[in-house]
Amino acid sequence: MTERPQVHRMVENIIRCKWSLSVLDLVKNGVNRPGAMERAVDGLTTKVLNERLRKLVRFGILEKTTFPEVPLRVEYEFTDFGQRFIRLLEAIDELEEEISNTMDQAS
Amino acid sequence: MTERPQVHRMVENIIRCKWSLSVLDLVKNGVNRPGAMERAVDGLTTKVLNERLRKLVRFGILEKTTFPEVPLRVEYEFTDFGQRFIRLLEAIDELEEEISNTMDQAS
Repeated sequence: MTERPQVHRMVENIIRCKWSLSVLDLVKNGVNRPGAMERAVDGLTTKVLNERLRKLVRFGILEKTTFPEVPLRVEYEFTDFGQRFIRLLEAIDELEEEISNTMDQAS
Repeated sequence: MTERPQVHRMVENIIRCKWSLSVLDLVKNGVNRPGAMERAVDGLTTKVLNERLRKLVRFGILEKTTFPEVPLRVEYEFTDFGQRFIRLLEAIDELEEEISNTMDQAS
């Protein structure tokens, strides 16, 4: 049994997880700090947010920067790979939108 | 609970299924007839092939044409949506290749 391609597993993992999609959407819109992320999304708890952020860093999609300030400032940004990865997700969403429109016209 | 986007579910379903990926690859390479598909892929049975073809038609990715010949000729082609859908899969594979290369260089 050959192992499944890594990017396949990442795509699958992330499109199955609405919180991961929300977090990526926030970073895309310039919401980079965990506190602001939590306030921006209804129902997103600190625990779930931290889990998703850790996963996205582990996948190499986000990188975490800690600024040595008081209080400590933490920000998440896309890596180069992450930039490309979210373009994939955008392409998936464009296709989604297109077929929804087609179905609306047909009904 | 809102329903998950349709294209998300399709992407997930297909990247999890090596036979679906094989079938799409065959059609991309001009192998359009079920008999030729079965001969081209080691381990692909008629039953599994037919299931995957039916699914890909149901998803609107492939369309089936039956030519009224003796013996009956059946061919599968991409729909317009299918063309766009496989470009997504290609983009996923390009990204895969790119990160594998990066990891090779790093090791």
